[in-house]
Parts: sequence; C-alpha cells; structure tokens
Amino acid sequence: MEAMASNALSHKRALTTIHDVAEAAGVSIGTVSKALRGKGRLRDTTRERVRTTANRLGFRPNDLAHSLHRKRSLTVGLLSNDSYGRFSIPLLEGIQQTLGNAGMSVFLCNAFDDPERERQHVESLLAKRVDGVIVTSRRTDPRPPVDLGNVGVPLLYAFTRVDDRDSLNLVPDDFGGAHAAVTHLARLGRRRIAHITGPERFESARLRRKGYKAALIEHGLAPNPALVLMGPWSELWGHEAATRLLDANAGIDGVFCGSDQIARGVVDRLRERGVAVPRDVAVVGYDNWEVVAAATRPALTSIDMNLQELGREAGAELLAMIEGGHRTGTRKIPCKLVVRQSCGADTH
Amino acid sequence: MEAMASNALSHKRALTTIHDVAEAAGVSIGTVSKALRGKGRLRDTTRERVRTTANRLGFRPNDLAHSLHRKRSLTVGLLSNDSYGRFSIPLLEGIQQTLGNAGMSVFLCNAFDDPERERQHVESLLAKRVDGVIVTSRRTDPRPPVDLGNVGVPLLYAFTRVDDRDSLNLVPDDFGGAHAAVTHLARLGRRRIAHITGPERFESARLRRKGYKAALIEHGLAPNPALVLMGPWSELWGHEAATRLLDANAGIDGVFCGSDQIARGVVDRLRERGVAVPRDVAVVGYDNWEVVAAATRPALTSIDMNLQELGREAGAELLAMIEGGHRTGTRKIPCKLVVRQSCGADTH
Repeated sequence: MEAMASNALSHKRALTTIHDVAEAAGVSIGTVSKALRGKGRLRDTTRERVRTTANRLGFRPNDLAHSLHRKRSLTVGLLSNDSYGRFSIPLLEGIQQTLGNAGMSVFLCNAFDDPERERQHVESLLAKRVDGVIVTSRRTDPRPPVDLGNVGVPLLYAFTRVDDRDSLNLVPDDFGGAHAAVTHLARLGRRRIAHITGPERFESARLRRKGYKAALIEHGLAPNPALVLMGPWSELWGHEAATRLLDANAGIDGVFCGSDQIARGVVDRLRERGVAVPRDVAVVGYDNWEVVAAATRPALTSIDMNLQELGREAGAELLAMIEGGHRTGTRKIPCKLVVRQSCGADTH
Repeated sequence: MEAMASNALSHKRALTTIHDVAEAAGVSIGTVSKALRGKGRLRDTTRERVRTTANRLGFRPNDLAHSLHRKRSLTVGLLSNDSYGRFSIPLLEGIQQTLGNAGMSVFLCNAFDDPERERQHVESLLAKRVDGVIVTSRRTDPRPPVDLGNVGVPLLYAFTRVDDRDSLNLVPDDFGGAHAAVTHLARLGRRRIAHITGPERFESARLRRKGYKAALIEHGLAPNPALVLMGPWSELWGHEAATRLLDANAGIDGVFCGSDQIARGVVDRLRERGVAVPRDVAVVGYDNWEVVAAATRPALTSIDMNLQELGREAGAELLAMIEGGHRTGTRKIPCKLVVRQSCGADTH
C-alpha cells in the first residue's frame, strides 16, 4: 500500500496541471476551467485555443478531480475576518464554484479579528486535514502571515496580502480600477474631476488615488491636491466632502468616489444643492454594491472588483498548489466598469 | 480502552447540562453561559441566581468543554444559502462565541441555493465527523428539511425553520418585533400608522403584519387595510409606497416599515415632498442594519433581530443536543427596539 500510494503520487506530479494549460494558452486558470467545462461566457476562439492547448499537453479536465479523489480530504478552509460578509461571501462563492467542480467543499471560518480564535480555527482546519487554506481579510494594510506550521498544506491569500516573498496573494487591481473610472470620466469630457475616498491608512485608498492621478495626467488634466478628499468609508463622509467642494466653488464636473457608499452621499448632497447628476457633475462609485448602486438616484456607475472571479482564480491557484505547483507573488485581478446613469454615458 | 470510552460516555450523559441549569434558573442558555463566564451585561441578581442554581445542580462551567474534548471532533457545520452574508455572518459570530468557549470551531458552508451543492456540503461535513450541524437560510417560507441520514449527528435550524415536529428551530420573534415597533409609535401619540413591507409570500412579512395589527388594536387604533402596502424588499419600493400614501392623502402620522431599506426610501421621499420626519410622520424600520439606519436622515429607529444572540442560543442548544439532550419545537428569540431619531422619541 505504501508503495502504491507513493507511485500514485509520483505519477500525479508528472501530470499536466491546469496551470500549465493556462500558461501555454496565455489565459487565466479560470478561463481554462470555463473552456474545458463548456460553461460561462467565452469567445469561441478562446475556448478553441484552450481546448487545443489542453489536448496538445495531454491535459484531461478530470485529471485534477481524479487525482484529488485518490489521496485528498476534498475540503479547503477559508479563513476570514469580515464581519459583514459583503466581501467574503462573493469570494467564497467564486472559490466554491471552482473547487465544487473538483468535488471539494469550502469551509469558511471567521475569526472576527480575534487572533486567538484565528489560531483555534487554523488548528481545527489542520486537524480536519484540509487540502489547502485561503486567507481573506478586510483590507487595511498587509496583514500578518498565517502560520500553518510545517505541515506542507498549501496556503494563499485572497483579497488581502502579506509582506512575504514566499506567499501567493490575489488582490483586486485597485490602481487599474481607479484608472478605468477616471479614464471613463475624462473620455466623457469631464475636466475637473475630484476624488472623494477612504482613509489614507488603507492601501486600497492609496492605490486608487494613484490610479486617479495617473489617468488624469494621461488625459492632459492636472492633478489638483485640493480636489482629493480622504475620510471615513461612509455615506456621511460623501455628504460632507461634497459640501466642502461646493462651498469652495471648486467648479468640479466629475467625482470619482472610493466607494459606492461615499458616492451615494455625494449624489444626494449634489441633488439637494440643485446640482444635476450627471449633467453638471458626473459621479462614479466603487464596489458595485448593488443594494447601494441601484438605489441611488441616478443609479451609480461603479467599479466592480470582480470578487467572484477573484475567488474562482484563488480556487484554481489553490488547486494548482495542491497538485504540487509552487506559486508566489502578488496577482492583480482586473476590475470592471459597470455603467449606470450617474456618469452620463450612453447605456444602450 | 473501549470499556473506558464507554464508561466515560455513560458518565458524561449523567452530567448536568447547561440546559438543565437554564431551565432550573428560569433563564436562557445564553444567560447561563454569560453568568458562569462572568462576561456580558447581566443583572447581579440574575448572575447570582444562575450561579446558585449551577452549584445546586452540580454543574461546573467546564464540564461541557471537558466532556467534549474527550470524544468529539470539536467542529460544527453551519449550512447557509445567504448570498449576502448580512444575516449569516452575525449568526455565525454568535454561534462561534458560544462554541468557541467550548473550544470548538464553526465551519460555514454556503450552498448558494444549489441543492446539489448542499448535498455535497452535508457529505463533507459528515465525512469530517462534525459534532453537529446548524442550518440557516434566507427566509421565505419553511425550507425543506436537511437529511443527515441515520448518523445521529445533532441538527437544528437557526433563522429559518422546517415543518417537522421532530426538529428544533430558532427564529426571531417577527410578531413581537413588529408589535414593539408599533407600540412604540402609538405611545408617542401616533394615530394613523401605515405599514410598508415586503412580499406576502415571506412568512416574516406576514407575521410582522400580524404584530402590527395586534398592537394597533391594543392601543384602540382601527387597522385600515388601505394603510398596509406590500411589495419588494427594496428602497425603491419605499419610495413608491410613500408616494402612494401621500398622493392618496392618507393623513398618516407614522410608518412602520418591514426593512431599513424600505424605511430609507420612505424617509427620503417624505423629505422630498416637504413632510418632516419625525415631526409630521414618525418612521420605524426593521433589521437595524447599521449601514442603512445610520446613513438615513434622520437616522432610523429600527427593530434589531438580535441575530448574534440568536446565534449564541443556537450554539448553546446544539451543545445541549451534543450532550445528549433531545430538543424540538420552534423557539422565538426576542427582538429589540433601537431608538434613533426617525421616531421622535427622546434618545437621552
């Protein structure tokens, strides 16, 4: 038995992984998964290229699930500290999609910011012999690494990152998301675009501010520090910041907000002061939080962080690591612009 | 070893459970837990009564944790289908508080409304030999029971219920919550109180409507079907319903809303039409969803479903079942009124 298990293991290591296929086809792991499962929206040419590549490399979609069934516990832990679930639940959904297709279940443990509880969860997950662990967090700054001891269980970070060269982190592209929002406003002819966002101590706020500035410069617009207002991640801050800009006669014709909640406050205040959105001032939010974006009048154009996609990619990366792949670095998952009415773009 | 384990088990069954103490002291399991851990806000007399009772019955706070450590896997599964996490995460937090004190971890599995995935999760949890399972759902109607097979793993339902006499269900007291909201408005002198709420097919909406009517009658106010408006659980429905009542000159001086999102829409529309809240019309919401309630101007008085407390009680009930207790029926966990500015009550 020992020998057989060992043989099976060596054989498995030699197999082509989903990651090999993704690299050879020049697409993401999620795209390979979609193409081979025949699910999801994908260009026919992309689907065909992935399939050809998979055939050429001798990758069969079921290799993964089969090899996993041999020796694995078929469970993965998701360690979170998100007290609202607004970010961790879409992430969980994406992870579960990828891993569910490999016959695996994802167990979410929430430490609610209690390091002692986090340690207890890590022990429980390891005691259950999970095949891997994904760590997620509310995102202020890099979080401290999670120590799984020396048990060889694959670990990665999703929607958070650690300062550790040996770790793999998947985060939304905050710079790119902000850049897309401001590019959109600039292309609609907006010239004095303010940025109302969250606190400086959030890496996401700092990166989005960078993306905002870079896009302004690319469109020949001079960044003006007086038009950047940082404060709490709240609707009330949106009110207050909009009031300040109006009272200062800043002459803005666009606002890129760091969250939909902030954007909601901005839009409400502009309307109350008789400023028409989007005619006089176009507004773009961030998060694409449906419950806020759709209820705002006019409904918010917003940046979607693609958290489900981030989750799917994290699941696929973890599968590749469980298969023996060694992965490090920080991968940025692209955001997408979701156009509604608040920016004045044609939505047809 | 076999004999020893068996002895330990018999001995354990004879131990006083936390539930025995709760029953004897006439308090909830959560209160026993608080009293014996010396945590949480509790009247001194209550704490003393619980301690005396525990002593009399020979219950030691650590019995539970100790006996569990002997034979148990120290993990519990929480099976959910909440895509937002708004309800399941506070519930998880409460469950984790109770079970964490017994050295246990809670694993949340989300089936995202896919019955096949739910079945897969159940299998994974049972394969991991969890000590118990708690099932939660978004709440429309009674959900179908979860089948754990014949493995003797304790199971209960929290924030959802099944139509099955042999099951244990913990749900918020929707009738009581609505009754408290309307009683509050009536005591503030409001006489024509409308009710704007969610769809008829939600049991919670039906129960809240009942509580609304009962409280009106108790205060000598005649229920008027024209003042009850049922529609989607959304802010936009709040707008629309408020518009209808204003256009019909319904002469309302109070509105009890079935959710904070609806209440937000109502308050915004009243303000836009020049109706002062709370002076002309007092408004009470439901859910005490901080992000909405606090951002509404004026901030919403709301009914809090005490989901963390519901989670703590569910955790304690599950512990009692793991200890060998047999529990059935539907327990209603009281809601609480959280007073902010929208009702016109003195908040000092």
